[in-house]
Amino acid sequence: MKNASPIDVAWMRRAVDLAARGLGSTHPNPVVGCVITARDGHPVGEGFHARSGGPHAEVEALRMAGDRARGGTAYVTLEPCNHTGRTGPCVDALIAAGVARVVYAVPDPNRLAAGGAEKLRAKDIVVEQGVLEAEAEAVNHVWLHSVRVGRPFVTWKFATTLDGRSAAPDRSSKWITGEAARADVHRKRAECDAIAVGTQTVLTDDPELTARDEQNRPTVRQPLRVVVGDRDIPATARVRNDRAETLLLPTHDPAEVLRQLDDRQIRHLWLEGGPTLAAAFLRAGLVDQVVAYVAPALLGSGFSAVGDLGAESIGQLRRFTLADVTRLGDDVRLTLTPHRKA
Amino acid sequence: MKNASPIDVAWMRRAVDLAARGLGSTHPNPVVGCVITARDGHPVGEGFHARSGGPHAEVEALRMAGDRARGGTAYVTLEPCNHTGRTGPCVDALIAAGVARVVYAVPDPNRLAAGGAEKLRAKDIVVEQGVLEAEAEAVNHVWLHSVRVGRPFVTWKFATTLDGRSAAPDRSSKWITGEAARADVHRKRAECDAIAVGTQTVLTDDPELTARDEQNRPTVRQPLRVVVGDRDIPATARVRNDRAETLLLPTHDPAEVLRQLDDRQIRHLWLEGGPTLAAAFLRAGLVDQVVAYVAPALLGSGFSAVGDLGAESIGQLRRFTLADVTRLGDDVRLTLTPHRKA
Ligand SMILES: NC(=O)c1ccc[n+]([C@@H]2O[C@H](COP(=O)([O-])OP(=O)(O)OC[C@H]3O[C@@H](n4cnc5c(N)ncnc54)[C@H](OP(=O)(O)O)[C@@H]3O)[C@@H](O)[C@H]2O)c1
Ligand SMILES: NC(=O)c1ccc[n+]([C@@H]2O[C@H](COP(=O)([O-])OP(=O)(O)OC[C@H]3O[C@@H](n4cnc5c(N)ncnc54)[C@H](OP(=O)(O)O)[C@@H]3O)[C@@H](O)[C@H]2O)c1
Repeated sequence: MKNASPIDVAWMRRAVDLAARGLGSTHPNPVVGCVITARDGHPVGEGFHARSGGPHAEVEALRMAGDRARGGTAYVTLEPCNHTGRTGPCVDALIAAGVARVVYAVPDPNRLAAGGAEKLRAKDIVVEQGVLEAEAEAVNHVWLHSVRVGRPFVTWKFATTLDGRSAAPDRSSKWITGEAARADVHRKRAECDAIAVGTQTVLTDDPELTARDEQNRPTVRQPLRVVVGDRDIPATARVRNDRAETLLLPTHDPAEVLRQLDDRQIRHLWLEGGPTLAAAFLRAGLVDQVVAYVAPALLGSGFSAVGDLGAESIGQLRRFTLADVTRLGDDVRLTLTPHRKA
Repeated sequence: MKNASPIDVAWMRRAVDLAARGLGSTHPNPVVGCVITARDGHPVGEGFHARSGGPHAEVEALRMAGDRARGGTAYVTLEPCNHTGRTGPCVDALIAAGVARVVYAVPDPNRLAAGGAEKLRAKDIVVEQGVLEAEAEAVNHVWLHSVRVGRPFVTWKFATTLDGRSAAPDRSSKWITGEAARADVHRKRAECDAIAVGTQTVLTDDPELTARDEQNRPTVRQPLRVVVGDRDIPATARVRNDRAETLLLPTHDPAEVLRQLDDRQIRHLWLEGGPTLAAAFLRAGLVDQVVAYVAPALLGSGFSAVGDLGAESIGQLRRFTLADVTRLGDDVRLTLTPHRKA
C-alpha cells in the first residue's frame, strides 16, 4: 500500500509500538498490536498480545473501546485471525463490535488462522492491507520467518577474539568478552524459545544455559535447553538442573534438530555453539542470523569460532549482509543476515 | 594548563586544525600549526608546516602578519624549535618579529630542537604552555610517540573474515574486504612513511605495496616498501618496480627492522603482515596500533589472521583498548590501541 493516508500510518505506527511490548513473551504466538478509532476518528481503544493464552490484541482494544467501536476503524499489525484456539477468532469479535473498517499491515502466513480478511469483507466491512507493512514485518520477523519456512528461526551467537578464536588451546574461554556483552547475551537468550549447544560445550564449560538478569537471577520465563550429540551428559551437569526444561537430542543432523523443535512449537532457536555444531548448521544452510560478540583482543592459538565449512579458496567465502554494528562496553556486536536473493 | 582563557583556546584550536592539514606530507617532521594575533587581539597571520624542507608554521604565519606581529601573540601547537636545520630556528624569527607572547600546546620532545621556550623567556617574551595540549598531542601522536620512544610508531593492519581468517587454504585472499575498506587502506598507506610485509606475502600475493588513489593511480608521495625475511625476492616481483623505493631486510628480528627504519627517519611503519611477521612484532611488544578490517563473512578454514603468540589459556589473551569502530561499506574497521598503563 504505497499511498496510505498519514492518519492510517500514524495509528498503525502506534499499533506496531504496542506489538513490540509483547516481544519475548508470546511464544509460540506472534506479537500483535491493535488500535481502535471511533467513527469520528478519535482513538478509543488499544491493546497488544502479551502472552500465549492471554487475550489477543484486537480483543483487548475492543474491550477498552466498548460501544465506541461501532462504525469505527480497527488498526491491526497482523491480519486478524479466523481461528478458534484458546480464544475465539478475532474476526468474530470485530464483526460483533460493529467496526466499519479494518486496516492491517501483514497478511497472516498461518494457514490455520488465515481467511480473516475474507470473512470481514463478506460482512461488508472495508478491509485494507499493507499500511506500514515493512515495520510490522520487522517487529514479527522471527515468528513470520518460522511460520513461512516451517521451522524455527535460527540465530547463531558466538563470542570471539578479533583473530576468530572462541577458546584457548586448553579449551578455556571464560571470559573473552566483557560484562556489557554478556548482559546483552542474557537479554537475547530471554527473548528466544530454545538455546542449543553441542555435547562438547556441556562437557567442557558446564554452562547452565539459563537467561539471567543483571543481578544474575534467572528470569521468569526460561527458554528450553537443548543439547545436541550422541554422548551422554553427566547427571551433575548444570544444564540438567531444574531452573529450566532440558531436551537431549542424540543426532548430528541440524534439520532433525529443527524438526524436533518445530514439533514443540519453538519459533526462535538461539544456537550457542560450539564451533562444531555451528558449522553443521551453517553447512546445512540453516542459520538465519549471526550475532558475533567481538573482543578487542588477540589469542593467536586455540579453537576457531567456527568449524570447517569445506572452503578451499577465497571464492568459497560465505558472505552475509552486515545488518548492525553496536559497541557494547569494550566489545563490538556484529549482526549478520543472509544475503537477500535479488 | 587548566584555566586557559576562551580566547587562547579558540586560537589554539585553529592552530591545531591548521596543523592537521600537513598530515601525511611532513615526514620526517611533525605537523605544526600557528596563528598570530596582533596587539589588539585580531588575527593577522596563520600557517602550517606543509612538507619537510618547506617553511615552518611560525615562519609562514609571521610572513603573513608582517609588522602587525609586533607586540602580538603567537599560538603554536608545538614548542617553537631552537634548532638550525634546513630552515633557521623559529624562536629567532619570533624574537625578530617582536611578538610579546608565545602560547604553545605541547613541549618539543626532540632534544636537538628543544630549548625554544627558555630562549624566548630570556628575551622577556611571555611564554605559556599547555593550552589544548590533548588535542595538539592527538594530531601529532604518531610523530611524538616515535620521537619519545626512539623508534617508528607501528600500525599493524589486517583484513579478516569474522572467524579470523586472512587467507583460504590455497593461500588466496583477494578480496576478503570490499572497495570502501580497500580505499581506506590506500588512504592510510599514503599517510605512513613505510609499508612492511614478510617475504611470504610477496611470494604469495606479489603485491605492489604502493599507495593508490580512487582511480588506482599511485599517489605522489610513496612510502618506503620494506620486505622482511631471509629469502630472496624474484627480480620480477612487483614490489621491485620503480614506483617507490624498496628495502629488503634479511632479518627475523622486529627490533632490528625498527632500528634500520629509524636510521632512515621513518616515523610511522604500516605493517601489512602476513600473520607470521605480525606475530613476531606482537610478541616483541612492538605494535602500537591495530587496524582490523573485518568482513561480514565466514571461511571456516585457511590461514589465521595472526600467527602463534604463545598463549595456552584464556588468561594469556592479549587485550587492547577499542579506540574506534567505523563501518566502511559492507565491512567494519576496528582500531585498537594498547591499554594505557594506569
Ligand atoms: N566463544 C563462544 O561463543 C563459545 C560458545 C560455545 C562453545 N565454545 C567453546 O567451544 C569448545 C567446544 O567446541 P566443540 O565444537 O567441540 O563443541 P560443540 O559444537 O558444542 O560440540 C561438539 C559435539 O556436538 C555433537 N554434534 C552435534 N551435531 C554434530 C555434527 N553435525 N557434527 C559433529 N558433531 C556434532 C558431537 O558430539 P557427540 O560425539 O556427543 O555426538 C560433537 O562432538 C569449548 O572450548 C567451548 O568453550 C565457545
Ligand atoms: N588479509 C591480510 O590482511 C593479509 C596480509 C598479508 C598477508 N596475508 C596472507 O598471509 C599469507 C602469508 O602469510 P605468512 O605469515 O607466511 O607471511 P609473512 O608474515 O608475510 O611472511 C613470513 C616470512 O617472513 C619472514 N620472517 C620475518 N620475520 C620473521 C620472524 N620473526 N619469524 C618468522 N619468519 C619471519 C620469514 O621468511 P624467510 O624464510 O624469507 O626468512 C617468513 O617465512 C598469504 O596467504 C597472504 O595472502 C593476508
